[in-house]
Amino acid sequence: MSVIVQKYGGTSVADVDRIRNVANRVIKTYNGGNDVVVILSAMSGVTDSLIGLAHQVTEDPDRREMDVLLATGEQTTASLLAMMLVSMGYPAASLLGYQAEVLTDDAFGRARIKEIGANRIKSFLGENKIVVVAGFQGCDEEGNITTLGRGGSDTSAVAIAAAIKADSCEIYTDVNGIYTTDPNICKKARKLDQISYDEMLEMASLGAKVLQIRSVEFAKKYNVPIHLRSSFTEEEGTMVVEETADMERVVVSGVTYNKNEARITLKKVPDQPGIAAKILTPIADAGILVDMIIQNIRAGGQTDLTFTVPKLDFKKALKIEEEIARKIGAEEVLGDEHIAKISVTGIGMKSHSGVATKMFAALAAENINIMLISTSEIRISCVVEEKYTELAVQTLHTAFGLDKENE
Amino acid sequence: MSVIVQKYGGTSVADVDRIRNVANRVIKTYNGGNDVVVILSAMSGVTDSLIGLAHQVTEDPDRREMDVLLATGEQTTASLLAMMLVSMGYPAASLLGYQAEVLTDDAFGRARIKEIGANRIKSFLGENKIVVVAGFQGCDEEGNITTLGRGGSDTSAVAIAAAIKADSCEIYTDVNGIYTTDPNICKKARKLDQISYDEMLEMASLGAKVLQIRSVEFAKKYNVPIHLRSSFTEEEGTMVVEETADMERVVVSGVTYNKNEARITLKKVPDQPGIAAKILTPIADAGILVDMIIQNIRAGGQTDLTFTVPKLDFKKALKIEEEIARKIGAEEVLGDEHIAKISVTGIGMKSHSGVATKMFAALAAENINIMLISTSEIRISCVVEEKYTELAVQTLHTAFGLDKENE
Repeated sequence: MSVIVQKYGGTSVADVDRIRNVANRVIKTYNGGNDVVVILSAMSGVTDSLIGLAHQVTEDPDRREMDVLLATGEQTTASLLAMMLVSMGYPAASLLGYQAEVLTDDAFGRARIKEIGANRIKSFLGENKIVVVAGFQGCDEEGNITTLGRGGSDTSAVAIAAAIKADSCEIYTDVNGIYTTDPNICKKARKLDQISYDEMLEMASLGAKVLQIRSVEFAKKYNVPIHLRSSFTEEEGTMVVEETADMERVVVSGVTYNKNEARITLKKVPDQPGIAAKILTPIADAGILVDMIIQNIRAGGQTDLTFTVPKLDFKKALKIEEEIARKIGAEEVLGDEHIAKISVTGIGMKSHSGVATKMFAALAAENINIMLISTSEIRISCVVEEKYTELAVQTLHTAFGLDKENE
Repeated sequence: MSVIVQKYGGTSVADVDRIRNVANRVIKTYNGGNDVVVILSAMSGVTDSLIGLAHQVTEDPDRREMDVLLATGEQTTASLLAMMLVSMGYPAASLLGYQAEVLTDDAFGRARIKEIGANRIKSFLGENKIVVVAGFQGCDEEGNITTLGRGGSDTSAVAIAAAIKADSCEIYTDVNGIYTTDPNICKKARKLDQISYDEMLEMASLGAKVLQIRSVEFAKKYNVPIHLRSSFTEEEGTMVVEETADMERVVVSGVTYNKNEARITLKKVPDQPGIAAKILTPIADAGILVDMIIQNIRAGGQTDLTFTVPKLDFKKALKIEEEIARKIGAEEVLGDEHIAKISVTGIGMKSHSGVATKMFAALAAENINIMLISTSEIRISCVVEEKYTELAVQTLHTAFGLDKENE
């Protein structure tokens, strides 16, 4: 007998028929002699319409109250699934975040889980009940409702799996696993059977919107294996697990892209100590997240400084820098919204050299100019013109031997 | 400075504009230097659509889960009002049933309040916050969500008012008070300035669906004065209070009617000890609530037994009695769905005689035949043919001097 946590996303519980489909899957696992804890998201679209409702009240809703409102979405699906299971003759009960003792900090709207008590989950499992937990929500020490941010139900699932020492954590979504790249822009994309936590973290933060980053951090910290799969097929998905020697033989496991950033360059900046801070502090103060930062040394005591910001903050950031450029005597400020960041990721890079050279050569062979480069231990990212996104992804996918074998 | 509890019903919070209207009323009271606790219902129609959603899942939803689902309705309005107040510059915070420590028994769907902690309500009031509490909901000793049944928010309001020793409890609804009778069928109906708890209890149970009965019981027990009024006007409503000497001078304060019952008569029943139990126990066992019971003595060791049941249960009850009649050797079973119960209520009856005679005479003068009579200390009810409902109500309203003075 195993303890299995299953998390179903918004599209898997979008209506009563789909909730019935989820119930059937849960029952199959339960009838296999397993303890089952189900974590649910809100029906797809519901969170957005609740946000819309709040915005009818005010443009800037109080964060504490917003969480009280948003928490109703998962409360609804959790009660409906439990109701469905009971009506099908199975013992089941729902638990909301606070009832499952999902204790978080008090950062409303983006709370972090501090601890999970899970006493009632365990006691319900002891009574052979199927436990249905509302994902995405918890409570702070004062008993206020908190929510964990977009995709937070993934984190609920992994954290609960860790708390009850589950044997596996299955995350059901509308895709059937992690792909070597986005199948929408590269037909040769291949589903991965497994991927390491670190690779998944790099890929998630680079724009593969499959799992909430924090859920992977949690899984890594507590070594919870995640099985990411589709609720619409019986096919096996992708296992997200600790790295193995086997994985290290594969140099690159995925190619990702991100079109959500824009580039800002300050040209001919006086090359003085502290100049980067002068340029970037006002950006941080404005709440804008800077991703890549590159400084080129020029002759003559001058330097060029380039950084990227989210496209949504581009205009604001540009305005800030134009003022700074005047103050510090930089020559000019250039901005470019039409960029894309293309990345290759793989834990094999740790022990293989030449990956970067191979990447640059492959892009050069297609006449794709590289504007910025950044690297981590297991990732290399290049910023290119946005129009080259598809070509760059397809080129690198082939260059690193990721294409489907049968094509 | 006073502590004021205000409860707003479903039509008062039906959409964002009406919630804004509620916010303005609340702010006016708060700016008058008062502590304000607001209790809200769900938006009108929401509870019904949640029930509809559950019925898509199963015809007989699990009661525990039903309460989890239904509780989202009040959670939504409470968060929206708190959000609205904060956006208007006033300190406010919402509390759900369990957060306000509304402890109930575990009779899901019709839970009774056992105790209210109200520690967080008091602590928020101490911080000068407007406290918005989700009505209709509480939790049992194990922390499960419970709901208090239709109209339960009235009871939440009165119970919270009692717990925090509020100076007044204002219940806002879509009518502007309690009337001497239903203004829809009697144009001469007059709004009452005040009414006693006992009169209100009789009138509520007789079909004046203005306040949940239990809320009046609570108000009576803890002596909480209720001000029932409309959220759409500034007009004063009706005070529901302890009886006063002044009230006793009015013999009849209201005329009510109820068309939701049906009559069943067993003719020529053998007059033996225990025969009434034999006839009525199977009805109770079937979960059917019997209201009036009348037994007439006949000559020859036989008796007729008549009782009323809710119209919804009429067919079921008739079938049960037809079988019983065969078993005990009663002559026949008669049923009548077209009846109405007309009642006059007034605490003055305690010290005035002749009310019944006056009622019977008034009805007789209009040729309205009385089929059944039942009485309490402060009420006399007559069952008549349904088609006489309006005429009977209007006749009694005039006979007992309740008509508007200016008409």
